[in-house]
Amino acid sequence: MAQKPGIPKGTRDFSPSEVQKRNYIFGIVRKHFETFGFQPIETPSFENSETLMGKYGDEGDRLIFKILNSGDYLKKVDEATYVAKDTGKMTPKISEKALRYDLTVPFARYVVMHQNEIDFPFKRYQIQPVWRADRPQKGRFREFFQCDADVVGANSLLQEVELVQLYDAVFTNLKLEGATIKMNNRKILSGIAEVIGAHDLLIDFTVALDKLDKIGEEGVKKEMSERGLTAQAIAKVEPLFSLSGSNLEQLQALKKMLQDSEIGTKGVKELQFIIETVEELGLQSANLAIDVTLARGLNYYTGAIFEVAAPKGVKMGSIGGGGRYDDLTGIFGLKDVSGVGISFGLDRIYLVLEELNLFPQEIEQSLQVLCLNFGEKESQAALKLVTELRKNGIKADLYPSSAKINKQFKYANNRNVPYVISIGSQELQNGEFTVKNMQSGEQVNYALSTPKDFIENL
Amino acid sequence: MAQKPGIPKGTRDFSPSEVQKRNYIFGIVRKHFETFGFQPIETPSFENSETLMGKYGDEGDRLIFKILNSGDYLKKVDEATYVAKDTGKMTPKISEKALRYDLTVPFARYVVMHQNEIDFPFKRYQIQPVWRADRPQKGRFREFFQCDADVVGANSLLQEVELVQLYDAVFTNLKLEGATIKMNNRKILSGIAEVIGAHDLLIDFTVALDKLDKIGEEGVKKEMSERGLTAQAIAKVEPLFSLSGSNLEQLQALKKMLQDSEIGTKGVKELQFIIETVEELGLQSANLAIDVTLARGLNYYTGAIFEVAAPKGVKMGSIGGGGRYDDLTGIFGLKDVSGVGISFGLDRIYLVLEELNLFPQEIEQSLQVLCLNFGEKESQAALKLVTELRKNGIKADLYPSSAKINKQFKYANNRNVPYVISIGSQELQNGEFTVKNMQSGEQVNYALSTPKDFIENL
Repeated sequence: MAQKPGIPKGTRDFSPSEVQKRNYIFGIVRKHFETFGFQPIETPSFENSETLMGKYGDEGDRLIFKILNSGDYLKKVDEATYVAKDTGKMTPKISEKALRYDLTVPFARYVVMHQNEIDFPFKRYQIQPVWRADRPQKGRFREFFQCDADVVGANSLLQEVELVQLYDAVFTNLKLEGATIKMNNRKILSGIAEVIGAHDLLIDFTVALDKLDKIGEEGVKKEMSERGLTAQAIAKVEPLFSLSGSNLEQLQALKKMLQDSEIGTKGVKELQFIIETVEELGLQSANLAIDVTLARGLNYYTGAIFEVAAPKGVKMGSIGGGGRYDDLTGIFGLKDVSGVGISFGLDRIYLVLEELNLFPQEIEQSLQVLCLNFGEKESQAALKLVTELRKNGIKADLYPSSAKINKQFKYANNRNVPYVISIGSQELQNGEFTVKNMQSGEQVNYALSTPKDFIENL
Repeated sequence: MAQKPGIPKGTRDFSPSEVQKRNYIFGIVRKHFETFGFQPIETPSFENSETLMGKYGDEGDRLIFKILNSGDYLKKVDEATYVAKDTGKMTPKISEKALRYDLTVPFARYVVMHQNEIDFPFKRYQIQPVWRADRPQKGRFREFFQCDADVVGANSLLQEVELVQLYDAVFTNLKLEGATIKMNNRKILSGIAEVIGAHDLLIDFTVALDKLDKIGEEGVKKEMSERGLTAQAIAKVEPLFSLSGSNLEQLQALKKMLQDSEIGTKGVKELQFIIETVEELGLQSANLAIDVTLARGLNYYTGAIFEVAAPKGVKMGSIGGGGRYDDLTGIFGLKDVSGVGISFGLDRIYLVLEELNLFPQEIEQSLQVLCLNFGEKESQAALKLVTELRKNGIKADLYPSSAKINKQFKYANNRNVPYVISIGSQELQNGEFTVKNMQSGEQVNYALSTPKDFIENL
């Protein structure tokens, strides 16, 4: 019996219209990556397991897809491990490769392996799929694309300025106006923890603070208390819950609050430089806003932290994020290489563009011209015309069989074709072809010998 | 100690210049796929194992990369299987997903799953990586891209004609002139076997015949004899070794030889129709040649067989291939859907373009303008200018730190940048910027207030 076909959960087939829309986004992201001087690299879909394992925490290790060794994969398993049936010990013996979990670790591996070929500072972008054995849910998939741009080997804050401009350029080009680029700085978070005397509770503090939007001021205070912050510490942090006003007003408040913390003061200065420089240069359609509750990737970032929110009114998690990390390549033996980067959340950007109806109509037009097929002799003339149209870059096709004309028109309608050409016996005799505008219904005849007349009117 | 990083054997990192060259090829292939009316789809990197296993023969099954189940993967293994240590029985219990081995089986699965959404005839293209646990060797990788275009649900030979034109359009656009599209027909091969009375030895016959180029006429005869063909059968096949002349002359010879075979005569007629129609329409730069030794994918194709050879003088295996298969989707329960398709061999086309020096020079130019960095104040003016250049679509960058100017120039040279801009304190005072043409050494000043003057000269 034939198999009933399906695909693994958490994965997706993409239809022609979906692929075209995704490629539209990729194309715009890629274009701006390149005008900003980023260069593309690509890395293998699977890496040696030791490259990936241990880099994303225990949870990450569990979510990495492992590839079974080829051939007699049990032969490397010693008897004791086999008898113990301990998958934790067995896995590294039967699987030595694993699917990429993100683009950052492979990039770090790439930089170290190719350090002698690379001209630093190295601005690279990478647009490739990653895989995670996460529980699939709405908007979360086991295979999805990441679009990352990172600079390594440059400490200047001008990089952060450029990355804000890059977000702005891409979202403006996508006509996604009003996105908010939220910024924070890991040093500010450290400074706050220091000032409130809860240095060792920084992670607890920021995890709780990050929930301000979700659980409100009282909720955050309660959680901070449960996580071991003293009442005194929480009182000192109180002004943060009501930080408001312009970016510069917020910076003043932060500066005052953190005046006794060296690292905090440094963080405020960095943030101030970035914000002032961006404001001086001007953004096209995005907003830049300080958000001291922003604490993503805490264990990872050491300076700027970015996150992008969709325009107001669109319910959607962040559509981009990033930050600076001071030691990207240390795990692979290359010390003191600072990196800063951002990424674009393709799947969510897609959903936002869909919701706001921002995909250009042309994307759905996979075929501009369909020639009807009236039989063998007529179709030869039609194919000649189609060949000429294609040489002029027009997406054109000949219906492959002389099916009933109704059926052929139905196909043209389904494929959303704007022009349908007929070359029947009468047209052939007259040396003509008839073009029907499918929207207006209007029909125009052209000479088969001068298809240019039609092409120029397209 | 830090890990010494490496990548799995048979996989590759792609540097910026390699990615750009590959994207150049993909871009041209994609453009022509679309002008010929093909629509893109994408399928998941891994499929359920049952979708792939058993579709490529025993050898194929062995070469499919299997993904280990997540979590406690041993729990589905029964005690008897575990004790027997039989990987053949164990594998399906600990691994339920596998990496795509080609694009054809996933396409067939896609067509069946989505048959109610698809408007037939369905012309799809797909450009995605595939994975094979093959022994790596020169030009053979464990991860590589396939670029396939197929039509399903159309029996007309006009499809074959179009596919020849498609090859011609792509290779012409790549400036790869003189490629030879070799054609045969599975029905001709069947006819030959019938005429020589070796019907049951068709596979042996064609495998031997396919080696004519490599081992010569005597070698083929010897191998045919070893494979069980009688001397009489081999004598009858003799004229095939010296088939020559124009396509039409060869067709005449084949027609005569196969006049008593119904299927063979049908094959010659099909081939003749395709060749005559293509010749009537004309090719731009490729040649079309009958090759009765062409027998690729014998178990698979039922009509036309294509294979493309690089231009004469380039030593390289086939750079493309394809054919017609009458029952693509039957394995998944959808009967009587005929398909015909071709694919482009990206890696080999890349090597041929490299050998013939056919990649356009602009590809290597990842940055058009580099602004030197003379310090904080100057760099702010520079960033303003760079922002303006980027808004005009120019690939421009500001060197991220005020390093020694020699070092900055060296970076510009390494990245092959044609224009270097200086805004030092003097220029800043004069409200100017200096553009150095790195090839001619010529320097020109422009006003910072009118960057358009420079942009228009680019």
